[in-house]
Amino acid sequence: MSAPRQVFIAVIGAGGVGKAFLSQLSTLAAKLSQSPTTPTTLSLLYLATSKKALHSPSYDGFPLSSWESSLQSSTTAPLALPQLAEYLNESPAKVVLVDNTSNQSVADAYPSFLSKGISIVTPNKKAFSGSYDLWKSIFTAARNGSGTGGYVYHESSVGAGLPVISTLNDLVDTGDQVLKIEGVFSGTMSFLFNSFQPTTGGGGKFSAEVTNAKDKGYTEPDARDDLNGLDVARKLTILARLAGLPIESPTSFPVQSLIPQELESCTSGDDFLARLPEFDGKMDALKQEAEKEGKVVRFVGSVDVPGQKVKVGLEKFDLGHPIAALKGSDNIIAFYTERYGDNPLIIQGAGAGGDVTAMGVTADLVKVLRLLQ
Amino acid sequence: MSAPRQVFIAVIGAGGVGKAFLSQLSTLAAKLSQSPTTPTTLSLLYLATSKKALHSPSYDGFPLSSWESSLQSSTTAPLALPQLAEYLNESPAKVVLVDNTSNQSVADAYPSFLSKGISIVTPNKKAFSGSYDLWKSIFTAARNGSGTGGYVYHESSVGAGLPVISTLNDLVDTGDQVLKIEGVFSGTMSFLFNSFQPTTGGGGKFSAEVTNAKDKGYTEPDARDDLNGLDVARKLTILARLAGLPIESPTSFPVQSLIPQELESCTSGDDFLARLPEFDGKMDALKQEAEKEGKVVRFVGSVDVPGQKVKVGLEKFDLGHPIAALKGSDNIIAFYTERYGDNPLIIQGAGAGGDVTAMGVTADLVKVLRLLQ
Repeated sequence: MSAPRQVFIAVIGAGGVGKAFLSQLSTLAAKLSQSPTTPTTLSLLYLATSKKALHSPSYDGFPLSSWESSLQSSTTAPLALPQLAEYLNESPAKVVLVDNTSNQSVADAYPSFLSKGISIVTPNKKAFSGSYDLWKSIFTAARNGSGTGGYVYHESSVGAGLPVISTLNDLVDTGDQVLKIEGVFSGTMSFLFNSFQPTTGGGGKFSAEVTNAKDKGYTEPDARDDLNGLDVARKLTILARLAGLPIESPTSFPVQSLIPQELESCTSGDDFLARLPEFDGKMDALKQEAEKEGKVVRFVGSVDVPGQKVKVGLEKFDLGHPIAALKGSDNIIAFYTERYGDNPLIIQGAGAGGDVTAMGVTADLVKVLRLLQ
Repeated sequence: MSAPRQVFIAVIGAGGVGKAFLSQLSTLAAKLSQSPTTPTTLSLLYLATSKKALHSPSYDGFPLSSWESSLQSSTTAPLALPQLAEYLNESPAKVVLVDNTSNQSVADAYPSFLSKGISIVTPNKKAFSGSYDLWKSIFTAARNGSGTGGYVYHESSVGAGLPVISTLNDLVDTGDQVLKIEGVFSGTMSFLFNSFQPTTGGGGKFSAEVTNAKDKGYTEPDARDDLNGLDVARKLTILARLAGLPIESPTSFPVQSLIPQELESCTSGDDFLARLPEFDGKMDALKQEAEKEGKVVRFVGSVDVPGQKVKVGLEKFDLGHPIAALKGSDNIIAFYTERYGDNPLIIQGAGAGGDVTAMGVTADLVKVLRLLQ
């Protein structure tokens, strides 16, 4: 058995996904330390929330088993991003930065980290769905782009741990022609419309289903952050770019917001929810129109690759269509390609939640660790 | 731009999958030669069918664009496997062996190739579903097992290009507990039962549907090779082993054959098909029994991981179940895990055909090329 190699892990974010990731990291570290061929010591070099940090200026690392109590008792402030980049750049071993935030500033700093040879794994959509310039800077710097820097992997930025991005990359890498990508990309929207218009009939008023989804924890604290469609638009931006389209931003294509124009001026989420019932009639009309055609309404996103068109909004689907048959808060993503013909390659399952999102991040970390060997 | 690195590709098999792979390889080689960061020259070093070969003793390689005519006019016999291993071992550059056969002898030689540092990508099920000793020898030698040899990837050994094996590996690598794997793993069985008992009612006699499937090219030349369930049993063996179960062989668990005992003595496939109508009554009874329960019959395989049980055979499914709702000759694979809870991670799409099988092989090659950098 050769001497173990050392890889440092720097983590930003310790919320739902961050906590689940740190737990998975602990299991992975124990396993890799025992690897018969490439024993690896994974050390937690740095861990930061927005308020405090574990920071080891002498690169000793912190025990993974007690990060929570260590962080609680820490009085250290997080490093500013340029300082963090410098600190990681001077590390005596290779570093993987794990960004478990949804922070735009951290995303904006990726090119700087990558060009220093620091690899990044992250579920943060902002880096890949913001301006096209940021996208280009990231993949110009990254080794798995056209650069010589660190690797960047972001499976969980679409569909959490579902193998969506890796599958799309495989299709493109092997020379298939992706024709259309279509699906339900939001657990919230999935739950909401599966309840509003189940394939078996029934379902409540739209506003009541929104309140129900919020009460069950399926929406953001302010449900408008789901209903405006921006989250779905960000995911479609990522997929369209991976398929080769130069999408400028998540607002550069048609996105249907489910926030009625009249309620755009609501000052709070509660105010909005209180007034939403005024628009139930309009949603009921949509539902009935679909029903008459033997269909159901779903909130979907699609990319027409040859037509270079991306759109997000309500569509009607036959009851037998896989998108109509979806259950609970599952996501579904269908890839229509030249090779797969009429029957698309479909991936389906939970597309949100701490554990499954962290799983995508950890799987990316495993891939990067293999490449860093 | 640095000098291009050279990687040699040795290919065994030039049938449906082999041809499609060589076409994808040609596209990939053109792309990699232009890579801005790691320009790579992929050369076809060796290509063999069971009868003849392209063999370049001085390691010059053959143009990918004209492999078909070169092979046609070749008078060279294929190298015996030990000679091939020696030849590849002495190659001046790294070698990836692509086994596009379903040959057991080639599979048996994998440990010898791997231990010489030769990587392997393949859709050949025999290597991973034969004896458990062969499985252990392969992964003891492979670098992505516990060895120091070449890499071995075999995505297309289950579900062709569908991301089945990579997803299962990701689940296991990140510490999820796989509870059950269940699905339709044969395009032939999928087509046969979707026609025999469509969810919309109707369907023909079982024997007529078998003949229809054969006429449409959905079965092996001898349909018994599909109906005996062994192909599905091999795929389940692979998945069960990846999930950690030490399955001895594809015949060490219950596999329901759809060849009636009375017809086991038939001397030809035609003789068998001529006599199969005698058993239509039995299959009709199964269909009606399912119908009474509001279900349909499907030929599925499943792995109960905690219970260490694998089985293959007919099962009944509710009309709303994703397995019942499958269309055409699609495969479907559902992973039930601790993290995904009641709603499994599902992958669905074409699980057979030259192009999509070759896609899995080419995607594996891309992964190996990245790791060989």
